[in-house]
Amino acid sequence: MNDSQRFSEQIAFLLEMDKMKNIYRQTRVLHEDRAENDAEHAWHLAMLAIVLREYANEPVDLTTVLETVLIHDIVEIDAGDTYAYDEAGNATKAEREQKAAERLYGLLPPEQGERLKRLWEEFEAQSTPEARFANALDRIQPLMLNFNKQGEAWRAHGTRREQVMGRMQPVFAGSETLGSFAVSLIEQAAEAGWLK
Amino acid sequence: MNDSQRFSEQIAFLLEMDKMKNIYRQTRVLHEDRAENDAEHAWHLAMLAIVLREYANEPVDLTTVLETVLIHDIVEIDAGDTYAYDEAGNATKAEREQKAAERLYGLLPPEQGERLKRLWEEFEAQSTPEARFANALDRIQPLMLNFNKQGEAWRAHGTRREQVMGRMQPVFAGSETLGSFAVSLIEQAAEAGWLK
Repeated sequence: MNDSQRFSEQIAFLLEMDKMKNIYRQTRVLHEDRAENDAEHAWHLAMLAIVLREYANEPVDLTTVLETVLIHDIVEIDAGDTYAYDEAGNATKAEREQKAAERLYGLLPPEQGERLKRLWEEFEAQSTPEARFANALDRIQPLMLNFNKQGEAWRAHGTRREQVMGRMQPVFAGSETLGSFAVSLIEQAAEAGWLK
Repeated sequence: MNDSQRFSEQIAFLLEMDKMKNIYRQTRVLHEDRAENDAEHAWHLAMLAIVLREYANEPVDLTTVLETVLIHDIVEIDAGDTYAYDEAGNATKAEREQKAAERLYGLLPPEQGERLKRLWEEFEAQSTPEARFANALDRIQPLMLNFNKQGEAWRAHGTRREQVMGRMQPVFAGSETLGSFAVSLIEQAAEAGWLK
């Protein structure tokens, strides 16, 4: 592979990434009446990583955490966003996302694509301190937004307190402090009637 | 300051950051008929940083580049987005942004806020290798999008080839490779009639 082909592949990947701006999540942004998209979500997680990393249970390399949260959802360009409490969608999610990862990371020069794909696999497996902290951030951020939006997404789906609480184990695995914070938000949301 | 106050300040800052999702730029996203917002833009720059850093003129610390591009526009929460070719807006931009930086970074615990504010000041002054590379990315990304959107934002503003070319010096300062790439896009855009 020559330099020019390498550069072309990198630019093609970066243009493909623009589709992250068009993948809408269940979470609502705070100050407009619309869903959050994957690019905004990933940026917000990166801001959480910068500001909150002192609360990671284990020492974490910030670059790895940032790279992980920035890329963790790019498989959704092909596989779409699967709502956390959609059981049918979650049954086929792993297979759809694996296929997406092969195509999307495959757009990059091999050593770059393989490195980023490995970070995504570690994220999914929660197999490193950075992956565990990234997972904690990925669960706490929508909780923060839903809570500050009076539980709009939960109320729309009739989400139950136990469902949300059941997803908080990875938050504790990445950060005890953020785990306790999550529980306090869920309890307040349940008291307010935003969770069933 | 106790731990609980520190944590509250950090969460308040991160919730305030949600406003970045509502600040719209002149650049259009590729696959929807709408403007790009600051959160999406910052995420896209971070992806460029991860993939293209081998083209930085000087060795750069990736964490610093990532933190810089992720925070470089947060002053626009108070100061708004100023179009690159808006002369009146640009005359008051520095003062508006300085005031915004004091309020926004001031939401954080002092040592965190001061560190991030310093990264923003270095970005504005282009005073470090990381700041110069971040500036190069900040100029090349809208160019890539405009070019791949058949010059929509340029045509809407009647932007001239010389205006765009005149803003490319920081790209060369951060990356000769990206500078040459920028010039080739501008020349193709001018030939296609998308730039006057």
